[in-house]
Amino acid sequence: MNVLLIVSYRGTHYHGFQVQQNALTVCEVLQDAMQVVFSHRPDVKGCSRTDAGVHARGYALNVVCETRIKPEKIPLALNAHLPQDIRVQTAQVVPRAFHARYSVTEKEYSYLILNAPSDDPLMEGLYYRVSGVLDVSAMQAAADVFCGRHDFSSFCSAGAKPGEHTRTITRFEVQRRGDWVKIRVAADGFLYNMVRILAGTLLLAGQRKKTRDEFEKILIGRDRRLAGPTLPAKGLCLEKVFYPPTALCLLPEEF
Amino acid sequence: MNVLLIVSYRGTHYHGFQVQQNALTVCEVLQDAMQVVFSHRPDVKGCSRTDAGVHARGYALNVVCETRIKPEKIPLALNAHLPQDIRVQTAQVVPRAFHARYSVTEKEYSYLILNAPSDDPLMEGLYYRVSGVLDVSAMQAAADVFCGRHDFSSFCSAGAKPGEHTRTITRFEVQRRGDWVKIRVAADGFLYNMVRILAGTLLLAGQRKKTRDEFEKILIGRDRRLAGPTLPAKGLCLEKVFYPPTALCLLPEEF
Repeated sequence: MNVLLIVSYRGTHYHGFQVQQNALTVCEVLQDAMQVVFSHRPDVKGCSRTDAGVHARGYALNVVCETRIKPEKIPLALNAHLPQDIRVQTAQVVPRAFHARYSVTEKEYSYLILNAPSDDPLMEGLYYRVSGVLDVSAMQAAADVFCGRHDFSSFCSAGAKPGEHTRTITRFEVQRRGDWVKIRVAADGFLYNMVRILAGTLLLAGQRKKTRDEFEKILIGRDRRLAGPTLPAKGLCLEKVFYPPTALCLLPEEF
Repeated sequence: MNVLLIVSYRGTHYHGFQVQQNALTVCEVLQDAMQVVFSHRPDVKGCSRTDAGVHARGYALNVVCETRIKPEKIPLALNAHLPQDIRVQTAQVVPRAFHARYSVTEKEYSYLILNAPSDDPLMEGLYYRVSGVLDVSAMQAAADVFCGRHDFSSFCSAGAKPGEHTRTITRFEVQRRGDWVKIRVAADGFLYNMVRILAGTLLLAGQRKKTRDEFEKILIGRDRRLAGPTLPAKGLCLEKVFYPPTALCLLPEEF
């Protein structure tokens, strides 16, 4: 059967999700647990490659596996063999054609900023700290400029593969709660490092280093050098991925 | 000069604040940093003993130290010699008579509960998890019973020293945000394990295992066996301590 798993992980000690040689990845640790629970090592199809140090609350992956364990018991079974920084939240049987990466219609990321003169040891590794005034309404105004369907070449790391750079940002919100500023952005897809560059660019707005007009120029310019810095991975979290109901709905012959 | 420091720490790897033989404590690590920065090892007066694993966002302590470093630069200087799970937030010069423990008028703690079927690896070590329905308004109703001036003998661990068990709870709030339930309680003082037993008792309310009448009986009974379990240290955080302005205000001759 084809099983969709939703997984949370703290990315601090991993070199991202996707298996790599000579580096510990989330995928590999999950496969080790699956080998014990399913008595075979299934291929894992992840919803995206995440960078080293990036976290996830709702990472989606699917595996074709043979097991007598009921789907609703799979999280418990796998969690018993996983370290505390990786937790399987839910499992459900999906159609054979479902693919965690190709079936995605939308992804939502968050970027967490601590706006304070010193660090918060309780949240260490989960945020990027900025001291000095941060104007959240100016950050939201910049985010509004980037909403919608655009060529995001200015927000794509130089190392990325060439190709189509048009994406649609469907939601882009900046909220402050005390010293914490949370950026949430959802799109039909993201370019390499796009969220971290967007967050770095919003920071320039919050620090009043650029005006609204300049943000429009960054977007139109299609040049990575125009946008702000790529913020560190530790503040980034893949919150949720979305699939169309039809991709998840089992066909009668699959029951 | 007498300096008041406000310190945050993640208690996971420490045996509480107060120095103990053969166990690593927050106080000891702070004194190591002070030895480097002040070139002498000052006595540290902490605002309270916290148990192993308990966290703090606003722990207060004072030290009488000799240094040419300006008070506002002390946090930066100490943080350069502290591990990431301990951060000095602020420093201020206070009157010679100020004592972080004896001058306290009120303390505020939080207890964080994750109400979900599985753990959150991003917040690991900072909460206690409860699955199943948790009725937050029933928890608040129980909290309201405990507010005010009472003998809290039912909420004091058996190992505590005998003595006066009357305390005044000034605020007691239970709030839900998604799967997270946060209990906040402020009082003029707390008995040994009092917050963790109060939280365990509110949990019985949330799980509808006890009625409002029964909470009144727990309070009147003055018997530890009547109250709920002592919840684990990891969910507990000392948020803030309060001092009267007069205790903090330098006398003219102390400038």
